[in-house]
Amino acid sequence: MVKNRDADIFLSILDSAKKRFCRYGLKKTTMTEIAGDIGLSKASLYYYFPNKEGLFKEVVSQGHKTLLNEFEGLLSSSVPAEEILQGYLEKRLNYFREFVHLNALNLESINSLKPVYARLFENFRKAEIRLVGEILAKGIATQDFQNLDIAYFSELFIAIFQGLRHDVIIKKDTINITETEYSLLQKQYESALNMFMKGIKK
Amino acid sequence: MVKNRDADIFLSILDSAKKRFCRYGLKKTTMTEIAGDIGLSKASLYYYFPNKEGLFKEVVSQGHKTLLNEFEGLLSSSVPAEEILQGYLEKRLNYFREFVHLNALNLESINSLKPVYARLFENFRKAEIRLVGEILAKGIATQDFQNLDIAYFSELFIAIFQGLRHDVIIKKDTINITETEYSLLQKQYESALNMFMKGIKK
Repeated sequence: MVKNRDADIFLSILDSAKKRFCRYGLKKTTMTEIAGDIGLSKASLYYYFPNKEGLFKEVVSQGHKTLLNEFEGLLSSSVPAEEILQGYLEKRLNYFREFVHLNALNLESINSLKPVYARLFENFRKAEIRLVGEILAKGIATQDFQNLDIAYFSELFIAIFQGLRHDVIIKKDTINITETEYSLLQKQYESALNMFMKGIKK
Repeated sequence: MVKNRDADIFLSILDSAKKRFCRYGLKKTTMTEIAGDIGLSKASLYYYFPNKEGLFKEVVSQGHKTLLNEFEGLLSSSVPAEEILQGYLEKRLNYFREFVHLNALNLESINSLKPVYARLFENFRKAEIRLVGEILAKGIATQDFQNLDIAYFSELFIAIFQGLRHDVIIKKDTINITETEYSLLQKQYESALNMFMKGIKK
């Protein structure tokens, strides 16, 4: 356990790094800028994070953890499975919007960045699939959903909505998403969920 | 109109280029290899195609043209709209498999390659959306489908299935798709179409 002052600095670094990575992406953010944001010397910053990649991974991990905790909260609520899926998609969309540069990186990772970050994104993806599986199981148990192949339909669910998100990024020259594009994505999410529900409900 | 011999050479170049691009991708294919495949000097090859990018664009354009012609054929047939959509997806999936490196490039294009090839892929995407729109219009006219917002549902349709394809590429270290992955994608296509149909049918 780090001392209090250390912990404060640690959190400040993560906070500044998150803002910069989300706004400018990994490549365009420098360690000097992050140190500058919180009045830290570059040497001190490197004491906490020996390199930018490690810091970036920590930011992404924290984001994933926060989101997964929110999802767990949804799952433990007593509302019907369909509403949980809806809640999950809302939170997922907000997260996408907040962390859009990180999602873009996920796409870029098919080339050069893959080896470094692939596991991080892959683990999160697996956690999401598992979570959706639990929601589907809940709906099957309450007889709202058909008796589905849970593994298959969880992956299909994640793939469809991930696909819709990527579609927004691929069409763009820059990573900044406009209100119009975001609204369209939101509407597509609703339509796709509606179709998915018709496909799996009893 | 080029002379017969010229036209023959032109087609041989396209054929060799397509094979190499599809197998090894744009970056790992050289003009020297393509010239070698058909016993042409490098100077002669450059007479037909001044650079590799131009040759690549021609290969992709030809692929798009062939596929769009096949789609048009489907559209002019007398089968119900649902079957046309199904036929479209089958052809689209075959094309994806044949040209998988080119699809991967489409993904990579969010970075460096974007300015050069963006228009090519964007035009094809628009052509596909237009085509799906015509199929939906056909289904509405025969009262098989609800009275839909055609522009919106065509784009949603394309986005969902493109998303499923990209999902296969993103999960991979290399671009070679295994039989198992391809079968899963095929199954996902069927499920997603099934859900889509439930969402739009009368």
